[in-house]
Amino acid sequence: MGSLGPYQRKHKITVVGSGNWGCAIAKIVAENAASNPAIFEEKVEMWVFEEKVEISKTSRHYDPSSPLCQGPQNLTDVINEKHENIKYLPGITLPSNLHANPSLVDAVKDSTILVFNLPHQFIIKTCEQIKGKILPYARGISCIKGVDVNEEGIHLFSETIGKILGIYCGALSGANIASEVALEKWSESSIAYDPPHMDSKAPSPNRSPSTSTENLVQFEHKDVSGQLSQVKLQALPSDYPPVDHAVLKSLFHRPYFHIRVVSDVAGVSLGGALKNVVALAAGWVDGMGWGDNAKAAIMRVGLLEMVKFGEKFFGATINTRTFTEESAGVADLITSCSGGRNFRCAKLSIERKQSIEKVEETELNGQKLQGTLTAVEVNNFLKKQGLEEEFPLLTAVYRVLEGSMSVEDIPSYIER
Amino acid sequence: MGSLGPYQRKHKITVVGSGNWGCAIAKIVAENAASNPAIFEEKVEMWVFEEKVEISKTSRHYDPSSPLCQGPQNLTDVINEKHENIKYLPGITLPSNLHANPSLVDAVKDSTILVFNLPHQFIIKTCEQIKGKILPYARGISCIKGVDVNEEGIHLFSETIGKILGIYCGALSGANIASEVALEKWSESSIAYDPPHMDSKAPSPNRSPSTSTENLVQFEHKDVSGQLSQVKLQALPSDYPPVDHAVLKSLFHRPYFHIRVVSDVAGVSLGGALKNVVALAAGWVDGMGWGDNAKAAIMRVGLLEMVKFGEKFFGATINTRTFTEESAGVADLITSCSGGRNFRCAKLSIERKQSIEKVEETELNGQKLQGTLTAVEVNNFLKKQGLEEEFPLLTAVYRVLEGSMSVEDIPSYIER
Repeated sequence: MGSLGPYQRKHKITVVGSGNWGCAIAKIVAENAASNPAIFEEKVEMWVFEEKVEISKTSRHYDPSSPLCQGPQNLTDVINEKHENIKYLPGITLPSNLHANPSLVDAVKDSTILVFNLPHQFIIKTCEQIKGKILPYARGISCIKGVDVNEEGIHLFSETIGKILGIYCGALSGANIASEVALEKWSESSIAYDPPHMDSKAPSPNRSPSTSTENLVQFEHKDVSGQLSQVKLQALPSDYPPVDHAVLKSLFHRPYFHIRVVSDVAGVSLGGALKNVVALAAGWVDGMGWGDNAKAAIMRVGLLEMVKFGEKFFGATINTRTFTEESAGVADLITSCSGGRNFRCAKLSIERKQSIEKVEETELNGQKLQGTLTAVEVNNFLKKQGLEEEFPLLTAVYRVLEGSMSVEDIPSYIER
Repeated sequence: MGSLGPYQRKHKITVVGSGNWGCAIAKIVAENAASNPAIFEEKVEMWVFEEKVEISKTSRHYDPSSPLCQGPQNLTDVINEKHENIKYLPGITLPSNLHANPSLVDAVKDSTILVFNLPHQFIIKTCEQIKGKILPYARGISCIKGVDVNEEGIHLFSETIGKILGIYCGALSGANIASEVALEKWSESSIAYDPPHMDSKAPSPNRSPSTSTENLVQFEHKDVSGQLSQVKLQALPSDYPPVDHAVLKSLFHRPYFHIRVVSDVAGVSLGGALKNVVALAAGWVDGMGWGDNAKAAIMRVGLLEMVKFGEKFFGATINTRTFTEESAGVADLITSCSGGRNFRCAKLSIERKQSIEKVEETELNGQKLQGTLTAVEVNNFLKKQGLEEEFPLLTAVYRVLEGSMSVEDIPSYIER
């Protein structure tokens, strides 16, 4: 790493978002920027939604003589001076070359690689704010789990970002519980990155041949709903190291965070959505006390339906081995069915004989479960396609949620 | 089910073996024999290695006036009168049409379907005892998990049984903890069954075209070591329902025990062996406190190496989707890495800072772990082939066991 040739310019990195997963990823990226000085600028920007925080008297950072400890302070100031996001990732020291920036526009300015890591309800608004204010040849990586499913089709968050900003955006997803990654406990993740070839010789199967001018490539992309979009991509100037699989690995791979870079953006993104639905069923079955055999059976059927869903709705643009071989597939499914919040809340809902909404309320502090939302969205989509029966587990989860099926009925229903 | 046509004869079933898994399977088979009277004889034989047992005063079967409660009794007598194997599967009522038979030869006499379910060290001796004393056109199903690996090659237990007895034998394996199956907790299992076509029109890829006489088919089978064996199979008389996937499903499928019948005997058998090696690594990682991400990463790499092992050594005779789609593959791996004994002992060995042999001694009552044996056997085989480096997780497990690698080294070693 670090010996990618003598380029005159270096990549500037910005992380957009600073929740617990945002900070964990920013920590990794900043560590790698510092240790690969031939490729990356040392200073990494992180956009932080500014808010007031207070360093408590029991904190390791408390110092009665410090101005930072005199009442409420800006979160960015605390991060930049104490190198810790005391609100969203307390206890973890962030690298000193990571700069918290309260200005979104200033944070992304001049950056060639933008890492998006924020709750998905904020994606569109955030992208609209920086549209036209980023380098036209920037590249993105979306760390936002899942996909956006509605009756009409399935949209990848990476595509939404790319379309608004007019850039190419890949995806990162995997068996990653943020707190464990932040503590540098060993884990793996998948990055999917497959931009159109700027020499336009080998178009991907989901794109029509592109036409290129000196530094502009235009390509057509057809999403799962059949919607065609035209994207104009600007080539990266040749004095930067090319943003390829090797550079992305240099940016995200750590001794405790092992990266495999693949080309299947849809597969990597889809796994992160569907596994939450499967995790609900696994939680119910576990809550029933049906044991490890039954839970493993649910996960097997879930994996099978993930593969089938990919084959059916993405065809040749997806590699079904992503689900069975990559961290974003089977490993993320396993983690989510072990201790993820969808699994836990579903299990509690059986044990306490409460609705899952009730458990959400008492356990999640007002946050909503991703799995229940996705189950409804996926069901609306399948229903519209007339394909509910072909995905019995995904359908069963929806029906249990809406109350038309009981957990006891799942085994016989998914058997067919 | 049950409407397979008006055959004049019915299949007689014998279960060879009566441990906890033997009895759980015998219970299923006897339930199905009773509910499919058009296909199966109602009475199912189970061979029981005779021993003396005593009904304790606290037992629900204790009746001071019963002769069965006067001191030590034959296990078979207790099973036949109380319908419970009080020694190996206590608390579970066995069907009244299941007959415990202390005579191996008498138990298998006239049976058309033999279900083998006994510890693998007894397979050869048991088969030798009944060789020539079974119906020449009988068919077998081996419920013995795993495969027999040595330096020379990999042998399936089903093939060993078939070769000694001169019959065709398939395999059953899956995510099945015996005690949970016995309690009728829902689970799934895989049966693999792919006998040569008796009309010899469509030989399987691992067999040369067979020559058939009126009721005899001779086929050649080449195992993974390249060893060629000739088997003469006698056709089932046409007044029996053919032993096919539908009949096997009728015999093993229950509302609480869902069966998928496939043709990949090698895949179904291999999964049951290799997952135990992976479970050791998962146990170590869990014992280290590395969290769910790390455990999922180990399982992902394990699944990948299972697929690769199958592809490499079984080529076209194996279906790699067996590992990623069937209960005998990914689901059994998940169950084994959740609470299986290999997982538990490996985890304890880290937590107690003891060797795994020491944990075996204190936890398993003199029994040996399957995973440690298989890890050594697989490593001998890989070493002989010069392929240790291509299977880094399987190799790492062996090296940790022999003391030349530490658990801390596993992540970086398997990364390559």
